[in-house]
Amino acid sequence: MRKIAVDAMGGDNAPKAIVEGVNQAIQAFPDIEIQLYGNQAAIEKYLMVSERVSIIHTDEKINSDDEPVKAIRKKKTASMVLAAKAVKEGEADAVLSAGNTGALLAAGLFVVGRIKGVDRPGLMSTLPTNDQKGFDMLDLGANAENTADHLHQYAILGSFYAKTVRHIANPRVGLLNNGTEETKGDPLRKETYALLSEDKTINFIGNIEARDLLSGVADVVVADGFTGNAVLKSIEGTAISIMGQLKTSIKSGGLKTKLGALLLKDSLYAMKDSLDYSSAGGAVLFGLKAPVVKSHGSSDAKAIFSTIKQVRTMLDADLVEQLTQVFAEGD
Amino acid sequence: MRKIAVDAMGGDNAPKAIVEGVNQAIQAFPDIEIQLYGNQAAIEKYLMVSERVSIIHTDEKINSDDEPVKAIRKKKTASMVLAAKAVKEGEADAVLSAGNTGALLAAGLFVVGRIKGVDRPGLMSTLPTNDQKGFDMLDLGANAENTADHLHQYAILGSFYAKTVRHIANPRVGLLNNGTEETKGDPLRKETYALLSEDKTINFIGNIEARDLLSGVADVVVADGFTGNAVLKSIEGTAISIMGQLKTSIKSGGLKTKLGALLLKDSLYAMKDSLDYSSAGGAVLFGLKAPVVKSHGSSDAKAIFSTIKQVRTMLDADLVEQLTQVFAEGD
Repeated sequence: MRKIAVDAMGGDNAPKAIVEGVNQAIQAFPDIEIQLYGNQAAIEKYLMVSERVSIIHTDEKINSDDEPVKAIRKKKTASMVLAAKAVKEGEADAVLSAGNTGALLAAGLFVVGRIKGVDRPGLMSTLPTNDQKGFDMLDLGANAENTADHLHQYAILGSFYAKTVRHIANPRVGLLNNGTEETKGDPLRKETYALLSEDKTINFIGNIEARDLLSGVADVVVADGFTGNAVLKSIEGTAISIMGQLKTSIKSGGLKTKLGALLLKDSLYAMKDSLDYSSAGGAVLFGLKAPVVKSHGSSDAKAIFSTIKQVRTMLDADLVEQLTQVFAEGD
Repeated sequence: MRKIAVDAMGGDNAPKAIVEGVNQAIQAFPDIEIQLYGNQAAIEKYLMVSERVSIIHTDEKINSDDEPVKAIRKKKTASMVLAAKAVKEGEADAVLSAGNTGALLAAGLFVVGRIKGVDRPGLMSTLPTNDQKGFDMLDLGANAENTADHLHQYAILGSFYAKTVRHIANPRVGLLNNGTEETKGDPLRKETYALLSEDKTINFIGNIEARDLLSGVADVVVADGFTGNAVLKSIEGTAISIMGQLKTSIKSGGLKTKLGALLLKDSLYAMKDSLDYSSAGGAVLFGLKAPVVKSHGSSDAKAIFSTIKQVRTMLDADLVEQLTQVFAEGD
């Protein structure tokens, strides 16, 4: 039985969307148990009773605008902190929250703790590509600065995830750079390029450019946290902007335009779905002693369900145990 | 009379698109003279004769896959190099090319030369926003590494451009960062934040995130060259990917979908236009002793015309003279 600690109070639609996602997951997966941390009365309002779900009541929670590290240290009984502590104390195998990302990163680092040999856990997501296969990118912003050694560790972590969770046999690892030639980039990129080229345990395919990410040029993309964060937010911002422009242009159009939009509805929805991160699961703070997974703040029940499914796959694959061994050997 | 040196041999559609763009500009602007550098016979095939256009023949040209610095040093009579030399020797006031970006950057730095006080000229473009007003962003990749002083200089350069060329009275300058709070970012961002806050000659509005760029959150966006390049390419890649997905989804749809697309044609084109960089002009290598402007490699005649118009505006505003004075005072 896999035990997942879920922060019921994090995210824009908490606790409703969180609890409804849990209901779906409990029905779909008979091999999981869920611990819901948060306000008991608010949770019970939406919860379908099951002997595989328990509620751990607390009145305290971390808000989206709380300063992350301070919040983790001061709000010792916040739902997110209790969920992380449950993992630390062996009562749960993984943590899931849709709340304050920075606070979850801090809880992961300071409460759950790093795998020995991983210097700076990175935030990783599976992002969508045109061919629907997706790619894993890290660090998406857990760190503001990284060294070449960190980036090398991200390549190993990302490869492992792509292999064991996404079942890609020999994942292509690309280094995000300002050009594809070997000589491109700043000293950080050049040093990383050398480290990745020498590591025969990964399938390093060289430098890749941000322009080619969505066409599926690599299965794993390695970036420093500052650039990874900027790229992720650029992709999101552009997608939102284009969909918004199309909407405005349809709204301000005449009858002909509106009829056209109606006829095109399926295609437009298909496009929106392909940009939809909710089915790809959450962002993993990767390199910790247990899966710590962040679901998008605007997650609905479906997104929470997908993230629980993803956590379950990570647990089934014994990802953390395998990584612990890999990084121990590397020492 | 403003004299513009144009590399007729650079870009995917050279010399046809270049010469046709020049034809349009010569007709539209009676106060400009154009020097076309390249193969005389190939140019004459498309050129409308005017006493304000001259051809300087050369057989040599820089290819898109040439190593930039080497190409500038070895191909001393390449069309791009001759155009840059014309500016250096006072025969022309500005250079325009749609060719090898790296080579044009090198020609700008080594042949045209920097304004005294500008340490690292940056590549700047006016990028589109939802409200059609656009924003100027630099550095987009002229440098792989930047210091806080460089970023401070970009804020001054960008503000000047927004004021004098785009006629924005008090341009809002934003620092691209991984969060909007003052304390965000790596040491480079924190140091830059302090410098920009102290400079009362610019209207610094604080940190901005890549997600908000296209919604017009700032008039000038300052970034290091590595991140700026990644963000620009992410925006381009995402736009191309979404338009491609929409096309595929329409093509594979039935009669209903195709009819819908036909009715929506105007809206879809309007959206495509708003993402179209060709009407916004070229990318300026900013901080040099004369305007050095790169038109997109795939430029058509319209894009070349727009870029010439942009160069003319920069010359009319005496931008370089003003900047020379500003940076001299700063010393």
